[in-house]
Amino acid sequence: MSTRVTVAVDAMGGDRAPGEIVAGALQAAGELGVGVLLVGREEEVTPLLPAGGATDGVEVLDAREVVTMHDEPAAAARTKKDSSLVRAARAVREGHAQAMVGAGNTGATMAAALLKMGRIRGIARPAIAVPIPVPNGERPQLLIDGGSTVDCAPEWLAQFARMGREYARTRLGVDEPRVGLLSNGEEPGKGDELRKEAYPLLEKVEGFAGNVEGRDLMHGTVDVVVTDGFTGNVALKSLEGALRAAVALVFGVLDSTPEAREAGKVITPLLLAAAAEIDPDTTGGAALLGIDGVCVISHGASSARAIVNAIRVAAECVDTDVVGRLKEATRAG
Amino acid sequence: MSTRVTVAVDAMGGDRAPGEIVAGALQAAGELGVGVLLVGREEEVTPLLPAGGATDGVEVLDAREVVTMHDEPAAAARTKKDSSLVRAARAVREGHAQAMVGAGNTGATMAAALLKMGRIRGIARPAIAVPIPVPNGERPQLLIDGGSTVDCAPEWLAQFARMGREYARTRLGVDEPRVGLLSNGEEPGKGDELRKEAYPLLEKVEGFAGNVEGRDLMHGTVDVVVTDGFTGNVALKSLEGALRAAVALVFGVLDSTPEAREAGKVITPLLLAAAAEIDPDTTGGAALLGIDGVCVISHGASSARAIVNAIRVAAECVDTDVVGRLKEATRAG
Repeated sequence: MSTRVTVAVDAMGGDRAPGEIVAGALQAAGELGVGVLLVGREEEVTPLLPAGGATDGVEVLDAREVVTMHDEPAAAARTKKDSSLVRAARAVREGHAQAMVGAGNTGATMAAALLKMGRIRGIARPAIAVPIPVPNGERPQLLIDGGSTVDCAPEWLAQFARMGREYARTRLGVDEPRVGLLSNGEEPGKGDELRKEAYPLLEKVEGFAGNVEGRDLMHGTVDVVVTDGFTGNVALKSLEGALRAAVALVFGVLDSTPEAREAGKVITPLLLAAAAEIDPDTTGGAALLGIDGVCVISHGASSARAIVNAIRVAAECVDTDVVGRLKEATRAG
Repeated sequence: MSTRVTVAVDAMGGDRAPGEIVAGALQAAGELGVGVLLVGREEEVTPLLPAGGATDGVEVLDAREVVTMHDEPAAAARTKKDSSLVRAARAVREGHAQAMVGAGNTGATMAAALLKMGRIRGIARPAIAVPIPVPNGERPQLLIDGGSTVDCAPEWLAQFARMGREYARTRLGVDEPRVGLLSNGEEPGKGDELRKEAYPLLEKVEGFAGNVEGRDLMHGTVDVVVTDGFTGNVALKSLEGALRAAVALVFGVLDSTPEAREAGKVITPLLLAAAAEIDPDTTGGAALLGIDGVCVISHGASSARAIVNAIRVAAECVDTDVVGRLKEATRAG
């Protein structure tokens, strides 16, 4: 990376904060050559740094309040002005950092980003682009919206499609990403009212390949899957439920007989390596698109590795000027 | 079963019809002691029967037309009067059978059942109750609606909850089924407009346990998961997508090195046995609830085994008077 990007990280957000967040920030600063601004309660963050102080590439910005998972998102973003989350967003607006990463209350992270950075002109609502792993070395898919805007108008889905397609170019490195509308059948007439009204608008989006179904997720039928934030959240968490069930089933089998346990000694390490490829910690953070700035959201249980990946995604978004490219791409729509 | 139940089966519906359908019907007649009325083109169905004619418990009802997957559901149910599907539904209405089973065009199957059998008084819309397997010997969950009514009013979700709960008693053998509303978070305030409006209505349904998420599917958090038919279809197919991806990943690992292939000789049969427990062919057909009669829908790729299970579910619905019990349960709401 040419000029060093600084990423503001909410050090207090997530189930494993601040320990894993700080560990991830240190690792990112070392491995990626990015600057990290750790935002949070100084007396909790600083002792976690080597030799108890600031390290090369890592700075601490004190913020006294913490937004919890139980806080009402919009209210927290508005009233907890001295929270690590709001201060991280403000650091971007004021130019102390070029991107933010949060692993805490997702709704509040979106609200804070929206409040401090504003929306891209012409974009009605922001949307989260979530990478979905596709096994066996295939490139991931992007699902947009993963949970930002739960009640959608048809036109917003068309905007999500344009943003998702542009983002897929950078993030997935696909020249001409194929876009599918998540529906309850492949035929054009399928869907609820929202899908039926959105379909003709999506037909005007380059690369639109028609309806796709839930079973196309984790399979490379299309690169970008467009849906409202409610359905997107349900679909992503359904994938998670099924994968957890599959893991329980497979490891149950590997522990079911003495012979299976013996065979498991060979199989288990290979399985874990293959599973790591589709682990959300590896596939990385989700970008909040439509905001006039870079905000990457990592899941609540983020480990240090997940934070490294989220910081990497954030820095790449800055380096490739994703926001500028989204402005271009959606102006056309 | 006391008096022999006769189940009308659409012999021409599904990707593997009529071969697998007829094979399943013969097996069901033999194993379950039910009568089966095979409805379809006589010249295609009869040659598949042993000795080329009717067998004990199996009769053939000639129907000249076939509803395909490309037919518009409502139109097909109305106009293809001599189709195997419509004739199967009519056979129930006219008392030649007490239940029907279809594995073809799902929308047309629902439309034919609705047209010929009518709705239960007071039920606004029918809903499909789909059993979702829970691994490691746990009892399945029921998702309702799995795809029947894609645009829902909040009150309809409350009716789905009452029907699903009553059906879970028979189907899952649970005395006091717990009911969850599928949403994008567990907190009561979560959800899109539909969920937020439905929540207070669901609070009046016995056994309501609040919101559940996609990741609760395939895990026994609740017995009945309530959702609209659009979201239900996306969730079910997302589970399918993830499970197929997991299978590809695991079998990729088992074929990745010579040692893995050796270990696979022990593991593969155990895995297949465990996977069979969560195979939709084993967990059985989905019941269309809210209809004044019994209609069980099997998936389009149904094998003979899937058809046996669907016929078993249909016969059990008749034996336990599910329709009568649904009338009772929903009258109260």
